[in-house]
Amino acid sequence: MTTPDTPTDPAAPYRITREPYYRPVGNEVELFTAAHARRMPVMLKGPTGCGKTRFVEAMAHKLGRPLITVACNEDMTASDLVGRFLLDRDGTRWQDGPLTTAARLGAICYLDEVVEARQDTVVVIHPLTDHRRVLPLDKKGELLHADPGFQLVISYNPGYQSLMKDLKPSTRQRFAALAFDYPEAEVEAEIIARETGCPRDTADKLVQIAHRARNLRGHGLDEGISTRLLVYAGQMIAEGVNPTLACTMTLVTPLTDDPDMHETLTSAVSTFFTDP
Amino acid sequence: MTTPDTPTDPAAPYRITREPYYRPVGNEVELFTAAHARRMPVMLKGPTGCGKTRFVEAMAHKLGRPLITVACNEDMTASDLVGRFLLDRDGTRWQDGPLTTAARLGAICYLDEVVEARQDTVVVIHPLTDHRRVLPLDKKGELLHADPGFQLVISYNPGYQSLMKDLKPSTRQRFAALAFDYPEAEVEAEIIARETGCPRDTADKLVQIAHRARNLRGHGLDEGISTRLLVYAGQMIAEGVNPTLACTMTLVTPLTDDPDMHETLTSAVSTFFTDP
Amino acid sequence: MTTPDTPTDPAAPYRITREPYYRPVGNEVELFTAAHARRMPVMLKGPTGCGKTRFVEAMAHKLGRPLITVACNEDMTASDLVGRFLLDRDGTRWQDGPLTTAARLGAICYLDEVVEARQDTVVVIHPLTDHRRVLPLDKKGELLHADPGFQLVISYNPGYQSLMKDLKPSTRQRFAALAFDYPEAEVEAEIIARETGCPRDTADKLVQIAHRARNLRGHGLDEGISTRLLVYAGQMIAEGVNPTLACTMTLVTPLTDDPDMHETLTSAVSTFFTDP
Amino acid sequence: MTTPDTPTDPAAPYRITREPYYRPVGNEVELFTAAHARRMPVMLKGPTGCGKTRFVEAMAHKLGRPLITVACNEDMTASDLVGRFLLDRDGTRWQDGPLTTAARLGAICYLDEVVEARQDTVVVIHPLTDHRRVLPLDKKGELLHADPGFQLVISYNPGYQSLMKDLKPSTRQRFAALAFDYPEAEVEAEIIARETGCPRDTADKLVQIAHRARNLRGHGLDEGISTRLLVYAGQMIAEGVNPTLACTMTLVTPLTDDPDMHETLTSAVSTFFTDP
Amino acid sequence: MTTPDTPTDPAAPYRITREPYYRPVGNEVELFTAAHARRMPVMLKGPTGCGKTRFVEAMAHKLGRPLITVACNEDMTASDLVGRFLLDRDGTRWQDGPLTTAARLGAICYLDEVVEARQDTVVVIHPLTDHRRVLPLDKKGELLHADPGFQLVISYNPGYQSLMKDLKPSTRQRFAALAFDYPEAEVEAEIIARETGCPRDTADKLVQIAHRARNLRGHGLDEGISTRLLVYAGQMIAEGVNPTLACTMTLVTPLTDDPDMHETLTSAVSTFFTDP
Amino acid sequence: MTTPDTPTDPAAPYRITREPYYRPVGNEVELFTAAHARRMPVMLKGPTGCGKTRFVEAMAHKLGRPLITVACNEDMTASDLVGRFLLDRDGTRWQDGPLTTAARLGAICYLDEVVEARQDTVVVIHPLTDHRRVLPLDKKGELLHADPGFQLVISYNPGYQSLMKDLKPSTRQRFAALAFDYPEAEVEAEIIARETGCPRDTADKLVQIAHRARNLRGHGLDEGISTRLLVYAGQMIAEGVNPTLACTMTLVTPLTDDPDMHETLTSAVSTFFTDP
Repeated sequence: MTTPDTPTDPAAPYRITREPYYRPVGNEVELFTAAHARRMPVMLKGPTGCGKTRFVEAMAHKLGRPLITVACNEDMTASDLVGRFLLDRDGTRWQDGPLTTAARLGAICYLDEVVEARQDTVVVIHPLTDHRRVLPLDKKGELLHADPGFQLVISYNPGYQSLMKDLKPSTRQRFAALAFDYPEAEVEAEIIARETGCPRDTADKLVQIAHRARNLRGHGLDEGISTRLLVYAGQMIAEGVNPTLACTMTLVTPLTDDPDMHETLTSAVSTFFTDP
Repeated sequence: MTTPDTPTDPAAPYRITREPYYRPVGNEVELFTAAHARRMPVMLKGPTGCGKTRFVEAMAHKLGRPLITVACNEDMTASDLVGRFLLDRDGTRWQDGPLTTAARLGAICYLDEVVEARQDTVVVIHPLTDHRRVLPLDKKGELLHADPGFQLVISYNPGYQSLMKDLKPSTRQRFAALAFDYPEAEVEAEIIARETGCPRDTADKLVQIAHRARNLRGHGLDEGISTRLLVYAGQMIAEGVNPTLACTMTLVTPLTDDPDMHETLTSAVSTFFTDP
Repeated sequence: MTTPDTPTDPAAPYRITREPYYRPVGNEVELFTAAHARRMPVMLKGPTGCGKTRFVEAMAHKLGRPLITVACNEDMTASDLVGRFLLDRDGTRWQDGPLTTAARLGAICYLDEVVEARQDTVVVIHPLTDHRRVLPLDKKGELLHADPGFQLVISYNPGYQSLMKDLKPSTRQRFAALAFDYPEAEVEAEIIARETGCPRDTADKLVQIAHRARNLRGHGLDEGISTRLLVYAGQMIAEGVNPTLACTMTLVTPLTDDPDMHETLTSAVSTFFTDP
Repeated sequence: MTTPDTPTDPAAPYRITREPYYRPVGNEVELFTAAHARRMPVMLKGPTGCGKTRFVEAMAHKLGRPLITVACNEDMTASDLVGRFLLDRDGTRWQDGPLTTAARLGAICYLDEVVEARQDTVVVIHPLTDHRRVLPLDKKGELLHADPGFQLVISYNPGYQSLMKDLKPSTRQRFAALAFDYPEAEVEAEIIARETGCPRDTADKLVQIAHRARNLRGHGLDEGISTRLLVYAGQMIAEGVNPTLACTMTLVTPLTDDPDMHETLTSAVSTFFTDP
Repeated sequence: MTTPDTPTDPAAPYRITREPYYRPVGNEVELFTAAHARRMPVMLKGPTGCGKTRFVEAMAHKLGRPLITVACNEDMTASDLVGRFLLDRDGTRWQDGPLTTAARLGAICYLDEVVEARQDTVVVIHPLTDHRRVLPLDKKGELLHADPGFQLVISYNPGYQSLMKDLKPSTRQRFAALAFDYPEAEVEAEIIARETGCPRDTADKLVQIAHRARNLRGHGLDEGISTRLLVYAGQMIAEGVNPTLACTMTLVTPLTDDPDMHETLTSAVSTFFTDP
Repeated sequence: MTTPDTPTDPAAPYRITREPYYRPVGNEVELFTAAHARRMPVMLKGPTGCGKTRFVEAMAHKLGRPLITVACNEDMTASDLVGRFLLDRDGTRWQDGPLTTAARLGAICYLDEVVEARQDTVVVIHPLTDHRRVLPLDKKGELLHADPGFQLVISYNPGYQSLMKDLKPSTRQRFAALAFDYPEAEVEAEIIARETGCPRDTADKLVQIAHRARNLRGHGLDEGISTRLLVYAGQMIAEGVNPTLACTMTLVTPLTDDPDMHETLTSAVSTFFTDP
């Protein structure tokens, strides 16, 4: 039973209560903190699986802000972001979308892989990203003024975007941007060992395999081996799987359907781990 | 509690109560005022982030008109502009769209980035832009005569429009047009210093960086650095961030994904600010 | 309060109660009158802003018929023309579309820019345009016989239609057609002076500028300067704006985004008006 | 007031009570009668405005069958033909579409311009056109057996169909076909004089103009001048309009937007009628 | 009145109570019977109008199974096959689609012209075609296990399919297949005479005309003359129509819009029947 | 009647209660078990009909997890996976989709042929595949934390995917992958004999026919003969059908529409079985 004197916090489900493990790789924490002070919209650029999502979580925790994440996709309409009317016992009832909720609660709203959304759907964020900081809920006839705490963050992977999917200049020019990349070898091995429980020298070998694969980016591979896949490899090895089998399953087979590229990656693995 | 003898003003949410900071760059205020006197539809042409939106706000404030802004997008249907029936306890209830609301209230209706909308959806504004000044609400069976105060304003960025997205002649020929561009160096630096609190000489340097980038427009850049991004840079510097880092984050990384262009812009920054 | 013995006229909102100003340019009034006597469907062909819409209004006034105008667009479905079921307290309720309303009331139904509508949606008007004069309301299970007063009129701008958007022969062959063009110089200047209150010699100059621009049609301009834009120019001048500035705002900037064409039009203006 | 012993005829709105004027041009009446005796599906092929629709009306009258006509279009879904559920006070209520109504009532169902419909929507008529003579109402869970009187008729204009729009062999092979064309000169002039009240020698001249234009079919004209347009010309002349003006308005301007073709047609008119 | 002890058979509407006339042309009856014993999914391949549909009816009658036929089309969604929620007095009510009904009743489900359906909609039949024999009703949250009697049959006409419309390997590999073609001359003439009541020698001539036309398949004709069209010709002749007129109406005009091909087919007819 | 002390298991319909017959072909059982221990998302790559689906069933049985399978298709929206609001007596009621159900119950969720789904719909699985293991139900305003037992498995057939349909790197990099292929000859023959009841030497011959056809993959065949089709052949033979007829019906006719390829496959069959 809820007593009237203990109001619930509507932002509670979105608070990051446990500090995420995030290993900074440059001055990104300081720059984001300064941008947040001005509530400047921020774009995080970088390849898949290099830690952008976890960085936003770490910043939301550090700054004490709720975090609302939206995985963007091509079917996403403006209504999915802003809200819609639902049928109710008494007719229609308005339901805020995640962007509207974030603007009301003063949360950080993180639009993940924003270019996946239709470019023109993205236009709905424009009035939130300039001096107005408003969100017109046209269907409801409300002009929502964002809470002072609200900040908009988007992620963007420039690596494999086709020409058809790119951010319009009128959107780009509304964001400051931080470029991310995979961490340096020392740092990356430290992350893998910590996250998987595999031995440090195994982690070092995994990172060296990744470096070879990342050089193939654009030469038959759309993207190199991400830190996330290295963590998968470490986990399999920590479960007692033979390292070569573990690497095939996590670093080779997921990445390519091409037999030649498969062999190239397999030989990179065999340089560091002997066959089972 | 609302008493019956104090009727609320339905236009209240759309009134610009605080005068926006707008620095005129030519005779645009006088020309718009004359066009407004005849309720002539006006098109604002110009690049991203040069102040078109703020100009409309300033004019709405000066002329004492409510302002209803619509960020256009490709998914926008005629119903999003005009209105639709919603389900209610007693069946369907009509809800005016923003264009209809503006026509009823005698507001300025500002359709931002109008070419984003489907060309043919744009057709619904035609009867409001000639001598008839009517809006047929076909679904409701009502022919709305616009309030005498109503005026239609659209914005249009001719810079990066594809051939597929252009205004039809039959739409263009319904608007008078004002061309906007970035302000002159002196004026732009004044704006940046005033808006961010950064020193004037820093603002001067930022404008000079922008001028170099704007020369690259069409030569690898879709658009130059906007006044808005210069304001971001000034804000970061005012927060105590190293100027080179601030410029990279706000003037270089957001603008391009191309490594060569990134270097070109970085060297433009290093001409005015030393490396951290 | 409405008393039962004073039935309201359902056609009242569509009656043209004030005679519109229309200046005939040929024998179009007589030809339309003869076609109306036989209730022949009529197509009005001609460029943007030459007065087709006002002509229909003038004819509706002269013939004492209500007028229902529909601005066609690509999203328009057959239901938008014919009608649809709406949800009501007791279930669904049929709502006539504008075409159905016109057929019931014996109005002139004017489909403006009919080629914008999907060609195949246009098919729904066919049974109204031959000897049957019926409109099947399939969804309602009603076969509506048009009122004897009903007449169908469409407008069509052959100038800039792409090959993809054209009237099908099976539609064309259901209409008699009147070709419209901009009025002769004398007449056009008379119209401008009367509509704007600007001096007659200014109106003459504006028409001469327009004639130069109309020669550029097909050579860099999709359409020439319409009578409507000349009226805008006259209005700005009548408001006291410098004529060159007024012409730039109303005759040059709206028409083109191309710098060369902008200059060509500007020099045409400067031939008649000196720089401010 | 309806008494219970006078049941209404649900087919009444679809009965052709007045004999339409139809002038046979060959053995089409006998062939259709024989096909109807076997309830064979029939396709009427021929150009626009040559009398296909009126022929079906005449046959429905002669055979004493109700007639349900559907003007096909690209937006037409299978539900538009077959029926759908509508919301009612007590939930959903099934509403038969025109094809279903025809199958229940034993009417002739005439699908006009059937290739306009999506080819695959046309598939729903297949089970009605073979030995099964059933229509599965999948959404209602009913398998409707057509009334013995039911017959399906479609029209088809092979002249200007693109390659994209053609009847599939699996549809074609379900129909017997009658080819229509414009009537012979004598017959066509007789029709025009009878329908318009214009003098017979005027009708003869109009037919001769049409013959010249029909030779241009495929050489700049999609279709020749139809009998319907000749009737329009005769009507205008009967209203007292100058014959040359009448022909321009009804035989020239509707048919072409090309200036050269306009002149060619105009000179054909001037061969028979002197300038006004 | 229905008494509680005489439950109605829900499969009754789908039972084939009268034995259809089917003339076997090979060992197709034995092969289908064996496949049915294992409930193996079967694909029937062959041209239009060669008897695939009637074969399935004959088999359903012979095996004593109900038959549910679905004419596939491009607009068909997975919901049209599987079922959907309908609005009812008490909210939504689930309505089985034809595939679901067939799986519940243990019927043969015949998907006619399955390639017309969107390839990916076809995917919903996959779980019914392997060892699982289940149909997930995701929207209802039910996993339906097919009745032991259920069997899936599809038809497929490889003759005129475009490259864009083909069965995916992952669908093909779920079906055994029987190839159909037009019957041999003797058998085909027997069928025509029996079905139409025309004399046997007339039937022989019709088959010979068909053989000539079938050689033109791929050389100007998409498909040859089907057995169904020959039956139409026989019916017209049995109605007393002149044989040449009957053949033109049923074997020539429906098949082609090309004048040359029309003449070729006409001369084939005149080889066997003299002109009227 | 359900008594309150015997709560029903909501996962019951998804439990694999009978051990499926699965014949391991490598170390895939051990590798999957290790990945499941870490709840690592797994991708199963391989051709049609080689046993991927049955492998997942066998693993779900072995690991004691419920299994929820979704056959993906192009029409599948994010709502089909995640859930939607349904209308109820009291308004709208949320219905979990299969992915949400699996996340709540701690089931293995198997997305079959995941590339059939729109790439961008696939994006909704992303937050379930990284350290967050959450599923945002945006429309319901709920952030669902997956049950500890939940694991995501997808299947993928790289063989005949067009360039347009491929997994995005940002999706690929979230999965470990196991490559499947048809079993070795000995194993495949063992499977066929066990599943169909046909003699072992017949099974051996069927496998040899398959090996010949699989060499044609990419040379006229999109895919080789699958194990499933070999099982069909064995079943027909076990039903007493002549082996050559059985092979034609199950291994030749389903696979190709090309006459030459048909003959090539037929001659491969005749090498092992004599003509009937």
